[in-house]
Amino acid sequence: MMKKVLIANRGEIAVRIIRACKEMNIQTVAVYSEADKEALHVQMADEAYCIGPKSSSDSYLNFSNIISVAKLTNCDGIHPGYGFLSENAKFAALCEECDITFIGPTSDAISKMGTKDVARETMRKAGVPIVPGSTGIVESIDEGKKIALEIGYPVIIKATAGGGGKGIRVARSEEELVKGIQITQKEAAAAFGNPGVYLEKFIEEFRHVEIQVLADAHGNAIHLGERDCSIQRRMQKLVEEAPSPALSQETRARMGEAAVKAALAVNYRSAGTVEFIYEPVSDQFYFMEMNTRIQVEHPVTEMITGVDLIQQQLKVASAETLAYKQEDIKINGWAIECRINAENPMKNFMPSAGKVDMYLPPGGYGVRIDSAVYPGYSIPPYYDSMVAKLIVHANTREEAVQKMHRALSEFLVDGVFTTIPFHLKLMENDVFRSGDFNTKFLERYDIMKS
Amino acid sequence: MMKKVLIANRGEIAVRIIRACKEMNIQTVAVYSEADKEALHVQMADEAYCIGPKSSSDSYLNFSNIISVAKLTNCDGIHPGYGFLSENAKFAALCEECDITFIGPTSDAISKMGTKDVARETMRKAGVPIVPGSTGIVESIDEGKKIALEIGYPVIIKATAGGGGKGIRVARSEEELVKGIQITQKEAAAAFGNPGVYLEKFIEEFRHVEIQVLADAHGNAIHLGERDCSIQRRMQKLVEEAPSPALSQETRARMGEAAVKAALAVNYRSAGTVEFIYEPVSDQFYFMEMNTRIQVEHPVTEMITGVDLIQQQLKVASAETLAYKQEDIKINGWAIECRINAENPMKNFMPSAGKVDMYLPPGGYGVRIDSAVYPGYSIPPYYDSMVAKLIVHANTREEAVQKMHRALSEFLVDGVFTTIPFHLKLMENDVFRSGDFNTKFLERYDIMKS
Repeated sequence: MMKKVLIANRGEIAVRIIRACKEMNIQTVAVYSEADKEALHVQMADEAYCIGPKSSSDSYLNFSNIISVAKLTNCDGIHPGYGFLSENAKFAALCEECDITFIGPTSDAISKMGTKDVARETMRKAGVPIVPGSTGIVESIDEGKKIALEIGYPVIIKATAGGGGKGIRVARSEEELVKGIQITQKEAAAAFGNPGVYLEKFIEEFRHVEIQVLADAHGNAIHLGERDCSIQRRMQKLVEEAPSPALSQETRARMGEAAVKAALAVNYRSAGTVEFIYEPVSDQFYFMEMNTRIQVEHPVTEMITGVDLIQQQLKVASAETLAYKQEDIKINGWAIECRINAENPMKNFMPSAGKVDMYLPPGGYGVRIDSAVYPGYSIPPYYDSMVAKLIVHANTREEAVQKMHRALSEFLVDGVFTTIPFHLKLMENDVFRSGDFNTKFLERYDIMKS
Repeated sequence: MMKKVLIANRGEIAVRIIRACKEMNIQTVAVYSEADKEALHVQMADEAYCIGPKSSSDSYLNFSNIISVAKLTNCDGIHPGYGFLSENAKFAALCEECDITFIGPTSDAISKMGTKDVARETMRKAGVPIVPGSTGIVESIDEGKKIALEIGYPVIIKATAGGGGKGIRVARSEEELVKGIQITQKEAAAAFGNPGVYLEKFIEEFRHVEIQVLADAHGNAIHLGERDCSIQRRMQKLVEEAPSPALSQETRARMGEAAVKAALAVNYRSAGTVEFIYEPVSDQFYFMEMNTRIQVEHPVTEMITGVDLIQQQLKVASAETLAYKQEDIKINGWAIECRINAENPMKNFMPSAGKVDMYLPPGGYGVRIDSAVYPGYSIPPYYDSMVAKLIVHANTREEAVQKMHRALSEFLVDGVFTTIPFHLKLMENDVFRSGDFNTKFLERYDIMKS
């Protein structure tokens, strides 16, 4: 087992990883930017080192400073968290070269899943359902036109190097397609250094359902059920739950098997998420992408399975064999996570960085808080705006929604605006409570005015 | 289902009950003494009324003021929490007379279990194992001598109206017995208005193991496994865990059955706890007493069973049939609770009331906080010294101990002394970690010096 781990991240996920390490008697090394001197992860780790100025590119993305700290402090491994370097194949490769364990998949797996057309083709070959579309990169406008006619409009043009909602464009006609391919290629070349685009049928109405997988370095892979992340604003997830209110036991099993196939196809190791487009009417699902890292919403899966995903990452990174077999994974109850951000939901979710004067998270039975905020902490404006992840666990969805409402109602944060009022309104919304909604929900309902 | 409940308590248990009510859409009415104007339960309840000055006897024990508030605010029920009026048969009877549901057992059940010699005799008749001793009250010194000779010294002299460590005295010889009976009778007459004493064999080395029971008004009763509360200082529980490290599956089942028998023998309704003396060497257990109320340590049972005990109390008080059958109750993992008090463990646990300047409870996976403290809150010196109950849940005892240590290590409380350093030392103690200890543990090991 690893003895010392560097956490190449900040905020709640750095705190989350430090907690898992402490519970496993693993020493921790925090790194931080000059803007994060007072951050909680710096105070909680056994050691902490400044790695650069406030700008992420000079600090949390600074390969050489991070590797240097890891080497100088004799770390066995680096946990990248999510965001920053977590899906950077070059960084993972550099760790491998420097004989430091990258706590995540191999650089090869990151690379394969990070290049969207390669991932799509790999999934097709592995027998994972994919959205109808092009086989690989669209080489010319004419080829694009031909494929679009075959699969039918609307289609979606995607940059192979994009992801997370960036480098994509919808075309509803041949005219839009021609323009769209040209613009997306140009933008992708500038943003990602790779102009390649591919085409997919554009499915407009769907639920975002994703499967958590866990794999070791010995070829074992399991899934831990699904998460439903259909409550999104501008493609950013705001609320996640597990299980999904839309999936039957049979579909859950099929989707889980597809996700394990996806993981095995790239010799996946560590925790990862296979995201699917799910159409409730047809009960069909299609591969969207694989996130080759731990995700923000991983706690809801922990709550319903009893599996500590960060501890499992640390174990399989230490070359341990997976402690769970598929039949060991039992789904127990219902979990919901609300991302509480320092944003003003009455003013179009405008970021609201600043000093948190009063901070009292909710407590009691079935309530979990993952946060890096404390009373008197100043949320810096340079990174994400997260205040806390509030997670609840109960026996049924109805009870979980009630519990979330109760917990939100007692969450005290003074000094900055937060999205707590938005989440309270959401928990009171009849459509949300019914469970029958898709990713268009927040476009269709103005929650703050209901 | 009840629509509005008055909580006749303060501190963390008042907050706990308000939370359960909110999750069930029950309106809440808080009551408070003049010393508790700024208390969290006052802020969290839908309504709050001052019922008297700081002295408990004039406020939280003030029958008429509490009943008046309940009547004036149209409450259906009163939840007494623990301590204060929770085991007061007269108050329960008054509620019954006033047509307010006392959220607990009937006054008759409280009365039967509160009179220790009656409880003992009731248990004997019901077939629940009791410690060898007198049948009922010892009528004379001579009768006492005779019984003591039969059962053998040492014996314990107990006031029938005592409880919680009060009104008891050990005798190791006939001389001590004679003196002991006389003194205990005199003390009991003064303290409880009832001079009756009875005798039991004094079992010196035992574990305190108790069974949580739950019963409805229709004659159904189940048990929810045991809690081990052997970590005590001067008969006050400091740490509780579930399950017990000492019980076999077979003993657990036998003890559970005995507890259900005990509950049925007094037509018990609501949540209650049957406390046992458990001798690991002989694998024998004996009835100690029944606590006819919710207990401080109820959360550890909730964590391992998934049953919300306060919600169940509210349901059965509304005459609902118990939602669980015995076979529905499954034990899942391991839970530990540490009572974090405002006391200085370096100075003989001297109380340390005052203002809490900084307060940041731990968070993350498997960590639960039940507390009524917030940053800036002043802990009044008039009541108990509790800061928070810190509860953890993990798959195994070893993991739970590690998690508790991790959680304690990040718990920030500034302004008052707390018992956090004591609990940290305890979690590091090899004997505690081995699970092999009894109620003499804290007499034998000076945790703060280890």
